[in-house]
Amino acid sequence: MAEHPHLRAVFLNCTLKKSPAVSNTEALMAKVVEWFDTMDVEIETVRVVDYQVAFGVTSDEGDGDQWPVILEKIKAADIIVVGTPIWFGVRGSVCQLVMERLDGTYAETNEAGQYPLYNKVGGVVVTGNEDGAHAAAETTLFNLTHLGCTVPPNVDTYWVGDAGPGPSYIEAGGESHPYTQRTTRWMAHNLVHMARILKANPIPAEGNTFAEEAEHERLHIG
Amino acid sequence: MAEHPHLRAVFLNCTLKKSPAVSNTEALMAKVVEWFDTMDVEIETVRVVDYQVAFGVTSDEGDGDQWPVILEKIKAADIIVVGTPIWFGVRGSVCQLVMERLDGTYAETNEAGQYPLYNKVGGVVVTGNEDGAHAAAETTLFNLTHLGCTVPPNVDTYWVGDAGPGPSYIEAGGESHPYTQRTTRWMAHNLVHMARILKANPIPAEGNTFAEEAEHERLHIG
Amino acid sequence: MAEHPHLRAVFLNCTLKKSPAVSNTEALMAKVVEWFDTMDVEIETVRVVDYQVAFGVTSDEGDGDQWPVILEKIKAADIIVVGTPIWFGVRGSVCQLVMERLDGTYAETNEAGQYPLYNKVGGVVVTGNEDGAHAAAETTLFNLTHLGCTVPPNVDTYWVGDAGPGPSYIEAGGESHPYTQRTTRWMAHNLVHMARILKANPIPAEGNTFAEEAEHERLHIG
Amino acid sequence: MAEHPHLRAVFLNCTLKKSPAVSNTEALMAKVVEWFDTMDVEIETVRVVDYQVAFGVTSDEGDGDQWPVILEKIKAADIIVVGTPIWFGVRGSVCQLVMERLDGTYAETNEAGQYPLYNKVGGVVVTGNEDGAHAAAETTLFNLTHLGCTVPPNVDTYWVGDAGPGPSYIEAGGESHPYTQRTTRWMAHNLVHMARILKANPIPAEGNTFAEEAEHERLHIG
Repeated sequence: MAEHPHLRAVFLNCTLKKSPAVSNTEALMAKVVEWFDTMDVEIETVRVVDYQVAFGVTSDEGDGDQWPVILEKIKAADIIVVGTPIWFGVRGSVCQLVMERLDGTYAETNEAGQYPLYNKVGGVVVTGNEDGAHAAAETTLFNLTHLGCTVPPNVDTYWVGDAGPGPSYIEAGGESHPYTQRTTRWMAHNLVHMARILKANPIPAEGNTFAEEAEHERLHIG
Repeated sequence: MAEHPHLRAVFLNCTLKKSPAVSNTEALMAKVVEWFDTMDVEIETVRVVDYQVAFGVTSDEGDGDQWPVILEKIKAADIIVVGTPIWFGVRGSVCQLVMERLDGTYAETNEAGQYPLYNKVGGVVVTGNEDGAHAAAETTLFNLTHLGCTVPPNVDTYWVGDAGPGPSYIEAGGESHPYTQRTTRWMAHNLVHMARILKANPIPAEGNTFAEEAEHERLHIG
Repeated sequence: MAEHPHLRAVFLNCTLKKSPAVSNTEALMAKVVEWFDTMDVEIETVRVVDYQVAFGVTSDEGDGDQWPVILEKIKAADIIVVGTPIWFGVRGSVCQLVMERLDGTYAETNEAGQYPLYNKVGGVVVTGNEDGAHAAAETTLFNLTHLGCTVPPNVDTYWVGDAGPGPSYIEAGGESHPYTQRTTRWMAHNLVHMARILKANPIPAEGNTFAEEAEHERLHIG
Repeated sequence: MAEHPHLRAVFLNCTLKKSPAVSNTEALMAKVVEWFDTMDVEIETVRVVDYQVAFGVTSDEGDGDQWPVILEKIKAADIIVVGTPIWFGVRGSVCQLVMERLDGTYAETNEAGQYPLYNKVGGVVVTGNEDGAHAAAETTLFNLTHLGCTVPPNVDTYWVGDAGPGPSYIEAGGESHPYTQRTTRWMAHNLVHMARILKANPIPAEGNTFAEEAEHERLHIG
């Protein structure tokens, strides 16, 4: 409806496989995109491993580092969706690399003096042939809150098979798995609900900035 | 200010030690309370181990189980703060017990058809003599989002000493640790900011209820 | 065969449910027991929640605390198998409680001056209707190594279903799940192999005791 | 002493920083090396990020992938020490990448039909300016047991500072931190003790191979 603000979402696909290899994580992320398409959300998708992203913890590691291109897309978004495969029971190395690079944003602030990711909302998509979705999701969502994101209820969706090796999301027909369908729908809606709420009601820059803290110290308050 | 709604917060202290033993977790939670006192937040504190709480995953395990008393306080709150010590690198057993008991709320809904903890905000307080705060916080905050809570940015505060055994928060003078002071302040403010925002702008019951899902199935939509 | 030493194994079932409720964890532990029965291993099983075990981190919390009874069984064993259900993506509260109580053993030593659990081997059994087995297993096995246990290869066995709620091990027919059958077999054999190896070749008390450390300090060595 | 077998250890430094940048993880690993030097252990050190290692889960991803060079060193070793920094509360991306690449060894066996890493022992070194050592260590040691390694007691050593940002191991003078000194000594000794024990008493290929399993299936046994 016209009353709602236009929203932008960035999808960070942290598969280990470069394009054009088939990515199960992308396939599940596409389900979130389908919902977003019904709610006037503009989508930007990044397959991280297709870029030259250096290991490091700053926002630009130089030498052809393409992280700055990705970071711009993240900063421009209202909604950040991190998609990762599970390897050895936890999130994949490319996902960990992405979080490490976001460390660089701690050195910056938005106009209000908060971390740059304040007033954005975050969610996760996890796929694996088995076990590890909670671990991958919880670490990633927690890291996003440290960076400034708000995490609404039920904004993780995942598909995993039963114990041990086995087919992945696409091959296993995960797209018709009722639980994953539901969590995908809840995730998509809650990300949009909260992004709209925060767009209209940003978190005030009170009690959550460094500048203010310095001011308090100067005045010997609190 | 008069314009702000009155808020209620429940603090669940998951120390292993019954009253009146000194609790480091309580000491750090008290710092969050101090901030809440400046922002018109009514406080309810529960030291879980002082109650007879049965192991289980329902909302009433019978036989004198006092969990229902605690659950009422949780449902009455706008803000839920879970405080836990670290043992063996993760959250303590009492904290795990509390989460397990909250599993019972999955069987209920609020008036809008959402999980009962929707439109509440959650945060965590962690203390330990060393290492494990991220693990304790991330699992707990993630679990709270599954249950319906919203997690604003920077709503975990913790104190841990350096590697290995050593003094705990109180004895170590953790109350004057600058990082913990800052995260406590940010946490208190962001919990209140978000609780106010959600009080005025609850998450709509669209795309995140079971009833609706049943209706869709009945009509063969989406 | 007569050449092998007689071994003792203790199984700690950390289900949340008291006897005689059916325990899925017990059902999978029974499969390990079956293998042990073929290898001259004497079994002691403890369903922890059937005992009055206090919260705490010492070896005797007094007031009718029955942990000392369990601890004796653990100390008498060559092989320690911890069985736990998954709740909220991690090991259950009773399992966490058991580890916390084992903290008390740090205050003691064996005759060689090492932690009392040295030269014992540890393994884990995990069941859940979905996701979380890696998290439950890795924390528990790691904790056991801190306490003195050796962890041989492939000594975790678990059964979990695919994403979301669903039937548990017994109801789902997990006993015929090939992956879980294999990991159960490997686990049982490797625990026994290593227990036999350590029985004949205990870890020498060199470089891993406190007494020695005190002596070095006295002599100003290393 | 002449009676002990000569041992080989490989140290995998998973710092994010290429040579010649100073690595705190390397500095703590060097302390383990010092102990190994007193026990006739031959050392091979690999700074992973100095090699061109592709993302992936096979043993050779082609296109100039240098993982095969590292894998050879791992296979030649009796002791594997993985060193990692902590980022965002967990092990770094390079460490995760290393584990992912080791996935490729699941496709191979040693002469006895076991996974190639059987009869090797594994340990970890973790450094960070704060919190996360347990998480980094537990995931890594658990993964190593899945791959075939044995994990003796107390084979993790770490240094972390207290809550929040702060100096790292070298700058903070972590080398004189008593707890880290002790765990380093215990780790070094127990890795060597167990490597010697396994060299003389390898884990028999009974109950832990695929070939055997196939044979059982063929004969319709167990």
